[in-house]
Amino acid sequence: MPERLRQEAEQLDATDPLASFRDAFVLPEGVVAYLDGNSLGRPLARTRDRIGSFVADEWGERLIRAWDEKWMDQPLVLGDQLGRVVLGAAAGQTTVADSTTVLLYKLLRAAVDASPERTEIVADTENFPTDRFLVESVAAERDLTVRWISPDPAAGVTVDQVREAVSARTAVVLLSHVAYKSAYVADLPAITAAAHEVGALVLWDLCHSAGAVELALDADDVDLAVGCSYKYLNGGPGAPAFAYVAERLQERLAQPITGWMGHAEPFAMGGDYEPAKGMRRFISGTPPILGMLPLADMLDLVEEAGMPAVRAKSVLLTAYAIRVSEELLAPLGVTVASPADPDRRGSHVLLEHDAMREVVAGLWQRGVIPDFRPPRGLRAGLSPLSTSFTEVLVALGHVHDLLTETSESGTSDERKQNP
Amino acid sequence: MPERLRQEAEQLDATDPLASFRDAFVLPEGVVAYLDGNSLGRPLARTRDRIGSFVADEWGERLIRAWDEKWMDQPLVLGDQLGRVVLGAAAGQTTVADSTTVLLYKLLRAAVDASPERTEIVADTENFPTDRFLVESVAAERDLTVRWISPDPAAGVTVDQVREAVSARTAVVLLSHVAYKSAYVADLPAITAAAHEVGALVLWDLCHSAGAVELALDADDVDLAVGCSYKYLNGGPGAPAFAYVAERLQERLAQPITGWMGHAEPFAMGGDYEPAKGMRRFISGTPPILGMLPLADMLDLVEEAGMPAVRAKSVLLTAYAIRVSEELLAPLGVTVASPADPDRRGSHVLLEHDAMREVVAGLWQRGVIPDFRPPRGLRAGLSPLSTSFTEVLVALGHVHDLLTETSESGTSDERKQNP
Repeated sequence: MPERLRQEAEQLDATDPLASFRDAFVLPEGVVAYLDGNSLGRPLARTRDRIGSFVADEWGERLIRAWDEKWMDQPLVLGDQLGRVVLGAAAGQTTVADSTTVLLYKLLRAAVDASPERTEIVADTENFPTDRFLVESVAAERDLTVRWISPDPAAGVTVDQVREAVSARTAVVLLSHVAYKSAYVADLPAITAAAHEVGALVLWDLCHSAGAVELALDADDVDLAVGCSYKYLNGGPGAPAFAYVAERLQERLAQPITGWMGHAEPFAMGGDYEPAKGMRRFISGTPPILGMLPLADMLDLVEEAGMPAVRAKSVLLTAYAIRVSEELLAPLGVTVASPADPDRRGSHVLLEHDAMREVVAGLWQRGVIPDFRPPRGLRAGLSPLSTSFTEVLVALGHVHDLLTETSESGTSDERKQNP
Repeated sequence: MPERLRQEAEQLDATDPLASFRDAFVLPEGVVAYLDGNSLGRPLARTRDRIGSFVADEWGERLIRAWDEKWMDQPLVLGDQLGRVVLGAAAGQTTVADSTTVLLYKLLRAAVDASPERTEIVADTENFPTDRFLVESVAAERDLTVRWISPDPAAGVTVDQVREAVSARTAVVLLSHVAYKSAYVADLPAITAAAHEVGALVLWDLCHSAGAVELALDADDVDLAVGCSYKYLNGGPGAPAFAYVAERLQERLAQPITGWMGHAEPFAMGGDYEPAKGMRRFISGTPPILGMLPLADMLDLVEEAGMPAVRAKSVLLTAYAIRVSEELLAPLGVTVASPADPDRRGSHVLLEHDAMREVVAGLWQRGVIPDFRPPRGLRAGLSPLSTSFTEVLVALGHVHDLLTETSESGTSDERKQNP
């Protein structure tokens, strides 16, 4: 390990204005380095410490009364905080609910059902499987056509590609803001504007953006967005997702999963379904209150740090990871498959090598945890508030060691087989 | 308060074989009597005590590795336990996921989409709002007709009513097993058989049954069922729901919310959606793991008690509540709107009086917590493992006192107005 890289990591940690935020997380000793906060963020110590009290007091003592006192509004109160702190969205446009999958389904359906004369959905072939599957399902059930974009391998989905794909036939464009493998950041304002030029809606998947990349949904005139809270928002395994619907669209849109909690008067238990005013109409069943608690804690922490500072650290982290990879791992054949331009890069870095599947398995055994993305990618998710520069260096140092060992043992195996 | 009623409560508590189970729950002193376990069950002390460790250890230390080690199978493992302990369902037919609303939508859609030549849904006008709303929505989007049954006020939905409503046009019948207001228990085996005679499927809503009434879904040849886990299964506010799909139907049915977690190979991230074999295909998004923890604890407790014992206590509790009401409250004008026959009665009792709205408000101020169901019902949910007979008596004693005070102050008000 070159001494200069180590010194640089120490220097970056020493001058990191967010360094102390890392202490807010549960940091068990057995975890040597965690580079998978974009699959499942670490829990906060505050969540660990107070969740038992939530069970005993808020649930156990207030019981059903807590619905009146607090919980009924919780999806929208938390949604508003998420909007203000993370999404660049004014109040009344965000709710926490369901899973990303269910919210994507509801908003896709709301979008296509709002314009029955439009017959196409535009999507891209490299989006996360759920997004692609849902586009296919909704198209099949509503008798629509999908127009697929193949992202440019060196640029992701471009504005020009979207301009070519959309037309007066387009009901909705579904894209991810940050690509889940490569980390390419789509040009959200320009793509949104291009869709609007032909009267189409855009639904943005923010799973790999929320809590890592600055967003300005209102200013960018976004129509619809969804995202998950268990990545950079540290909501915990399978935590509820969020949905954003621009206020100007809410009255026009209806979602198909019409449960009592989206009704104008949930406790009237009346006759026909009458959707609530505003964001509440996008809620279906009873909101998952316990599952929202970790997200509430993390939003407070993000609010304290501020998204500009979070994003600034994210850029430094990914830049440092790329620098270390190029210095330490490129000689072993590792290539960086994420954008070099920090403005086009999310908060993870994809490193590719033919031996990556084995390397990631070896890393896990050492307590170094990135994830593997087929066919040959190590995805290093760098969660700005919980990842240190030293952690990045340690992890990539282990990649270096394992790749060296693999290539040595490969040679030695060959010797054995071909003496 | 007649001494005989108090002695009877004490006697029933003293001879209750499940009395000690009550100590497993969080029982704060400020809650004088809790008769709303059918809206939100009390938390278990075990849940309170271990949920912080779950955050620190299983989530915080295993992190993303826990998906491989345990969480991926958790919805189905917990589903199997729920099937075995509560539903009378063999393994491989139950999953924990989403909310009741979302699961109802998915299974309604799966049922009607499986038989496009059938053009009707049968449902009843007194079902819980979500069920009725979803029937209307699915019917509208799939161009189907709803055939509404009006339940007999003195018997709930009868087999004869279902026989009259179903035909070769019926795709699916959606009914609640235990009516959410009156507590009438539908004749599940006979109604299921009546639907099968015309080739229709039946989807049972078990929200007010699961954990309170014995079920034998396999033996009764049930097709589909859903239910929530935050009532008699004490899963916590907005806890995930469950779905049952008979094994014989699983390959034939497809649900519309096609997320990665229902795919045959979730981590292959491949091209087209290919539904998983078995129950996994009814899962959509990332399962809510944290939200399943309280349910897991409660299922262990129910397994220890055994559903026959739980049901036996439920019958004694509701019978005692009715007896107390008739002796203590009937003279004040309260009527029992739940069935007298214990075989036809779920685990709650609906007591009606014109002043009930005010009475329930007054009860809440005293720490006595049933819920109010418009227009004039006090619904006393008696959760067999956490409710004592004395608790029932204390609560109804407060109803007596409040009704007496109300009628006295009413009289005095009248006097003032009409001197």
